[in-house]
Amino acid sequence: MSQGDSSFNPPRGMRDFYPEDMILRNATFGAWTAAAARFGFQSYDSCVVESLDLLKRKSGEEVVDQIYTFADKSGRELALRPEMTPTLARMIAARQRTLSFPLKWSAIAQCFRYERMTKGRKREHYQWNLDIVGESSVSAESEVIATALYALGLMGLGKDKLCVHFNSRSLLSLLLNHIGIPAAHHQQTFLALDKRGKISDEEITALLNAAGIDKPNIDKIFQLTQISTLDEVFERLGKSPLPCQQIIRFMELIDAQGIRDSVMFDISVIRGLSYYTGIVFEAFDTDRKFRAIFGGGRYDNLLADVGGTPATGVGLGFGDVVIAEILAVNDKVPVANQSQVTAIGFMEDNQHLQAVSIATALRHKGTSVDLATHSEKPKGFFSRTGKAGFKQAIYVGPDDINSGTVRIKDLATRNEQIIKISEITGS
Amino acid sequence: MSQGDSSFNPPRGMRDFYPEDMILRNATFGAWTAAAARFGFQSYDSCVVESLDLLKRKSGEEVVDQIYTFADKSGRELALRPEMTPTLARMIAARQRTLSFPLKWSAIAQCFRYERMTKGRKREHYQWNLDIVGESSVSAESEVIATALYALGLMGLGKDKLCVHFNSRSLLSLLLNHIGIPAAHHQQTFLALDKRGKISDEEITALLNAAGIDKPNIDKIFQLTQISTLDEVFERLGKSPLPCQQIIRFMELIDAQGIRDSVMFDISVIRGLSYYTGIVFEAFDTDRKFRAIFGGGRYDNLLADVGGTPATGVGLGFGDVVIAEILAVNDKVPVANQSQVTAIGFMEDNQHLQAVSIATALRHKGTSVDLATHSEKPKGFFSRTGKAGFKQAIYVGPDDINSGTVRIKDLATRNEQIIKISEITGS
Repeated sequence: MSQGDSSFNPPRGMRDFYPEDMILRNATFGAWTAAAARFGFQSYDSCVVESLDLLKRKSGEEVVDQIYTFADKSGRELALRPEMTPTLARMIAARQRTLSFPLKWSAIAQCFRYERMTKGRKREHYQWNLDIVGESSVSAESEVIATALYALGLMGLGKDKLCVHFNSRSLLSLLLNHIGIPAAHHQQTFLALDKRGKISDEEITALLNAAGIDKPNIDKIFQLTQISTLDEVFERLGKSPLPCQQIIRFMELIDAQGIRDSVMFDISVIRGLSYYTGIVFEAFDTDRKFRAIFGGGRYDNLLADVGGTPATGVGLGFGDVVIAEILAVNDKVPVANQSQVTAIGFMEDNQHLQAVSIATALRHKGTSVDLATHSEKPKGFFSRTGKAGFKQAIYVGPDDINSGTVRIKDLATRNEQIIKISEITGS
Repeated sequence: MSQGDSSFNPPRGMRDFYPEDMILRNATFGAWTAAAARFGFQSYDSCVVESLDLLKRKSGEEVVDQIYTFADKSGRELALRPEMTPTLARMIAARQRTLSFPLKWSAIAQCFRYERMTKGRKREHYQWNLDIVGESSVSAESEVIATALYALGLMGLGKDKLCVHFNSRSLLSLLLNHIGIPAAHHQQTFLALDKRGKISDEEITALLNAAGIDKPNIDKIFQLTQISTLDEVFERLGKSPLPCQQIIRFMELIDAQGIRDSVMFDISVIRGLSYYTGIVFEAFDTDRKFRAIFGGGRYDNLLADVGGTPATGVGLGFGDVVIAEILAVNDKVPVANQSQVTAIGFMEDNQHLQAVSIATALRHKGTSVDLATHSEKPKGFFSRTGKAGFKQAIYVGPDDINSGTVRIKDLATRNEQIIKISEITGS
């Protein structure tokens, strides 16, 4: 038995979705899909199997270590993608001369990452990807963030539950220049500062030191991280440098999007991936109990990195795992399942064909019908359909066939309605 | 350049879906999903990565040869599933004591098969799976076939374009008994006969001979394959054996489903997989130019094979590749893309924020809006939005801001409507 039992599990770190699990997943994917359509994004997709070479060229080292790799029978090195961005870059580069820019693309992509299993961390998840490629103005950042917040609204999570924290790597570069850190050290400084909260300040100091930054400058860098408002930034830099102008415009657009209360400047937001070059952002629950709900930012070198013509873009990734945890603590997990479905049952085989005809007629009128596959006693039928939460139930017995009518019972209100069978079937 | 170009392709045999490819895919998945809901199926899913051991135990030898396999870092043998059925059996077996039967489950599953590349044959495809498990009566067969035909109807393909051909392995067994072929030879006879049309009759004779069947019996088997109607079957067996009774009932149910004209008996339908035990079926285009659109049948040993309690079921698989070819020759490939979307543009940066406000208000009223990310000349805006096939276009210029109105242009009829901005934004 135990041997049999263990074979019933999915592979370690992979998820099964039973019908009750699909309610939440369908609601999540539905909100993502609806928001993308509402904001004029076009959907795209690609196979979860990608060439290892592409992923090696595009992803960070840490990511490459965690890729599931294998070879096909011709010895090609293949992999299960850990993220969608290299694939996006490849697909756009392939048609760069014929696509219209800026393009706004959306995908729900399954991604795999071989991580040591810590407290239920999974090895695969679904990630909604939004990208606007070929638009240099911050209207791209404003648009992807508004789209993601719209999706969260559809899931029942508004500004009281979460906030988008943003920063700008180009702004940070100006601030680093301002305190005398040369550009050659900025990238390593970003990656070190991104680890704040995950490792100690001493370890970050060691990282910065290893990057060739001396103690006085490290102290100045730590002082920068104390900045808490844009006004403090403008006091140091003025408002005229381009990154400052961009952030001011970004906030105006965010305001016009009606999401001003859900967006705040936060100098601690850096993002781990090295390809970001401008505004970066992460959305967190208000209590900061969970990892980021979504994150993203501007990249400039993505297409060039895969061999395409350089083009700037903004990307956003929104996974299905953290949002599920946040919906759970906010009591927003959808439970509806069969609530839009009419159940039809019958007492004896003699009423089976009539029940099929009624089901067929209702389905062609647009009603979802769960038709019993065998006869049932009325008690069993109403107990089963009541428990399953169907909207309505129609039970066909010999008397109904004789009278030419059926009773449609609303399972929530228990109201009954008597209807002629010929009215339903039109015969 | 050529080096760059080659890196832009997906791995061999895998598909990219650009936005224009997603129109057909979304329509296909949409029809599958809608039909499954209309017939009361519940959705389920599982990860595309499955344990190789499960697949080896459940799939035919030919299939196992074509599985993409790899190991995780702990040495576990994993695989990309070639079909969904072993996963379905595992998931049901894991909860066999708590699930309610009969259960009706639906999944759209990506499946991989490493095949030699012949004329564009792909190595991955999506397959819609419908299963009714725990129902012994032929109402299960009738229900899955009606559901698949309903989906085809949603795609614009009716009874004039296709037909479901069915047979019964238990009926075939009776016919084989009737001519003196012992039960021990039936399975090999099925697999040999399934190859008719793919290999020559001489080769099938050789296969039957190798299975230990002598020449006179092989001749009798070939005579059976000439049967073209159920009446001819009943002449030999009468109507009282259970498989005959089941087929008679099946046809009554098919009639009540209103799909009698789309279903015909065809003794040549056997199906290649060994796990079928009862009725088997395949849907073909009327001209028989393409491979089967969908296929399936009854299985009895699936759950027991993975270590569960035996339960009978009916499964149906419907791939996304053949249907795409048939939709293409029937001119039924959907082309609509942005036809439900309103495009908004603006002349100068000064009108950008107002354009964002209008877009935001419309989106919250349920309109899909593609908002320009930068200013455009009117000629460019209307040329771009006309080509893309948007439903409506709103172009905001300085005069509009002054007058407090915008013009909404229907891009198909070219009608224009002047509306107060305050009416849209409610401010």
